[in-house]
Amino acid sequence: MARHFSLSGFPEWLPEQRLVEQHVLSTLQRTFELHGFSGIETRAVEPVSQLLSKGETSKEIYLLSRLQADQATDDAELGLHFDLTVPLARYVVENAGRLMFPFKRYQIQKVWRGERPQDGRFREFVQADVDVVGQDTLSQHHDMELPLVMVDALSKLPIPKVVVRASNRKVAQGFYEAIGLADIEGALRAIDKLDKIGEKAVAEMLMADGATDEQASQALTLAAITGSDGSIADQVLALGARSERLDTGLNELVDLVEGANELMPGSIVADLKIARGLDYYTGTVYESTMVGHEDLGSVCSGGRYDSLATDGKKTYPGVGLSIGVSRVLARVLGTPLVEASRSVPTAVLVAVMDEEHRRASERIAVQLRDRGIPTEVSPSAAKFGKQIRYADRRGIPFVWFPGDPDSVKDIRSGEQVDADAAQWAPPAEDLHPTVRMLS
Amino acid sequence: MARHFSLSGFPEWLPEQRLVEQHVLSTLQRTFELHGFSGIETRAVEPVSQLLSKGETSKEIYLLSRLQADQATDDAELGLHFDLTVPLARYVVENAGRLMFPFKRYQIQKVWRGERPQDGRFREFVQADVDVVGQDTLSQHHDMELPLVMVDALSKLPIPKVVVRASNRKVAQGFYEAIGLADIEGALRAIDKLDKIGEKAVAEMLMADGATDEQASQALTLAAITGSDGSIADQVLALGARSERLDTGLNELVDLVEGANELMPGSIVADLKIARGLDYYTGTVYESTMVGHEDLGSVCSGGRYDSLATDGKKTYPGVGLSIGVSRVLARVLGTPLVEASRSVPTAVLVAVMDEEHRRASERIAVQLRDRGIPTEVSPSAAKFGKQIRYADRRGIPFVWFPGDPDSVKDIRSGEQVDADAAQWAPPAEDLHPTVRMLS
Repeated sequence: MARHFSLSGFPEWLPEQRLVEQHVLSTLQRTFELHGFSGIETRAVEPVSQLLSKGETSKEIYLLSRLQADQATDDAELGLHFDLTVPLARYVVENAGRLMFPFKRYQIQKVWRGERPQDGRFREFVQADVDVVGQDTLSQHHDMELPLVMVDALSKLPIPKVVVRASNRKVAQGFYEAIGLADIEGALRAIDKLDKIGEKAVAEMLMADGATDEQASQALTLAAITGSDGSIADQVLALGARSERLDTGLNELVDLVEGANELMPGSIVADLKIARGLDYYTGTVYESTMVGHEDLGSVCSGGRYDSLATDGKKTYPGVGLSIGVSRVLARVLGTPLVEASRSVPTAVLVAVMDEEHRRASERIAVQLRDRGIPTEVSPSAAKFGKQIRYADRRGIPFVWFPGDPDSVKDIRSGEQVDADAAQWAPPAEDLHPTVRMLS
Repeated sequence: MARHFSLSGFPEWLPEQRLVEQHVLSTLQRTFELHGFSGIETRAVEPVSQLLSKGETSKEIYLLSRLQADQATDDAELGLHFDLTVPLARYVVENAGRLMFPFKRYQIQKVWRGERPQDGRFREFVQADVDVVGQDTLSQHHDMELPLVMVDALSKLPIPKVVVRASNRKVAQGFYEAIGLADIEGALRAIDKLDKIGEKAVAEMLMADGATDEQASQALTLAAITGSDGSIADQVLALGARSERLDTGLNELVDLVEGANELMPGSIVADLKIARGLDYYTGTVYESTMVGHEDLGSVCSGGRYDSLATDGKKTYPGVGLSIGVSRVLARVLGTPLVEASRSVPTAVLVAVMDEEHRRASERIAVQLRDRGIPTEVSPSAAKFGKQIRYADRRGIPFVWFPGDPDSVKDIRSGEQVDADAAQWAPPAEDLHPTVRMLS
């Protein structure tokens, strides 16, 4: 069941749901770092001129103004960033002299878009991006590296399997040029809608843009090609059209999927219908859907841009992908498909005999925490049954009773044993909340 | 040396500085969880009416508007939150039926204030808050618990020692009432300025507000009292004034500092000049300064509010503190007082013999990563000397050479040994970047 948020489009989680989100975010962070990516965080705001520089007028930008602004001295107009790519481009140019290239960075932050909220579309949401940015040049092998970072990260999350698919804009462009299609941008936009509106409607769009029946049919045949090895090139070449751009794109795409599947079998599928609506991609493009949740749309997308940024003297090509973390989380928490093993971080609740002896319980808690065991002291010295209920309602597995000797009770099994706060530890699996998928 | 930020008041860090920030944030998170606090995150925006409900007009709020807003259908006016207390109050009331009380939560997020940027004062900055919120009642022992959570957290950070000081509004209020001061709010505000403007100026302020010479002198004598045990009560009572409120406040304050120092010796000092400018605190108040950096002002403050929120039927009292993370970080990174052991997460760079053999290096990287070792493959197959320089410039400690057998070189010592990617591991201290204080 989807959760109702008090402000439409601005998701917020309950503490036990936030545990799942934290697990997801820390897994992403850990995996990105395992691949040698540096974490950065950029400010939430950019000058509006920067936000609009890519012509992204389709994104609804939130503008800022100060409640008590002094018109005369006010600053440049600022807006909240709507993705993490525009800020990355600005950060790279600004810090080029202090960064080392190729610059591998990940960035996990909230972004804002003033769009009409829908299922899986929010006004405030978290994205997790990985990109590698070169100075003037960026080797082609990064086009395989980046999606494999995401495959690794996604496979470690408590979510349904995500299938990462890739294509290459040069393939479609080169092919369209070779068959004489006039409106190449238009054709890419039409093919991008294939999953939404179907072959017939796409053919009509193509023909409305000037394609012949034959050209529309060829474009659709190309878009139907998928595969995980060199056979995709054979299928494309069997259609008869050839161009230099097409050959380059096919080589890049085959290298990518063959390499990826050699290194991580089953990791990436070539799928020639992927076009990506955004205009700045210049080569490889990626999309990914969660199996059984294709209605969510792509949950991890990206591509290569030969000029992510430029400072006039140098150009910064990049390739990267972005996970729509909130979109995935809203689905797995809303259904729900996952849950945390308890609603608080606490592993042990130390009971309090009576208020006069609270200090003794606090001392035990200090000892347990010093040994890394998340511990709370009961807020009230109520009857022990009530204190146990406090733990039980929160899923805290152990209640500690001060005494001579102390004892600790696993309130799930009821088993109670003598224990010493300087020695005892819970089983490793009970130390911190865990997150599991519901079957 | 303080860093220049491209947008004044909006700090951004380089990757090696961000490693320090991440270390600080994860240490805070881990410590808060060790004490059983649940992490929550609230949306960045609140309705402006909510932001202004506490009469906080002194805070410069950033208002939002949509670039392409449709006037007719636009939503309630929204603004960016300027602290994490107002959102907490809203979250608690909104989710009261789904939360368990007392509700212990931590929250580490950015907040925004459109104030004029100064040293240590930003327009966008990170706060780390811990609060406990009760439903209708909240035991007094939490007034000791909360600052001790912060003492524990602050002591684990790579920063100079932070001294946490506490007072109780009831002490000053009760005392002022007992000596017949007319303008109690004004007196609290004047005393709050003591560190900034000195005794003489404060006395003048008090007298300008109607205090006699004698009353001003008594108020200053009270404000000069500090201590870590029951002797503070003796000092206050020796001044001769008595009231029920004063007695209550003194009892609460003595319980707090005696308990805290019994549990964690040297943790909290009572300091009766602490007043806190904000008007919603009703009992204990806290401030903290970093030793040697008193010019930064308080880096961790808070207090008790008997009515953090109310929904008409129930009242939610709370007590909590907030660390100004960005303020502390800007100082320790700007000086600098701390540094990370390397600028990237990578522990091992796998060298590439030539582009034809890149796959062999990638396979080694997969093996090392599977065993939790952060690994990169050299982006270029340049001469080994150049690849080693790539690692050296980033502080990556190990370079792996594929061969028969493979070998791995500690580029700091120059020592090179045969190694098997299925077995070898770096020393534990080299696995991840570490953060250390510069002496």
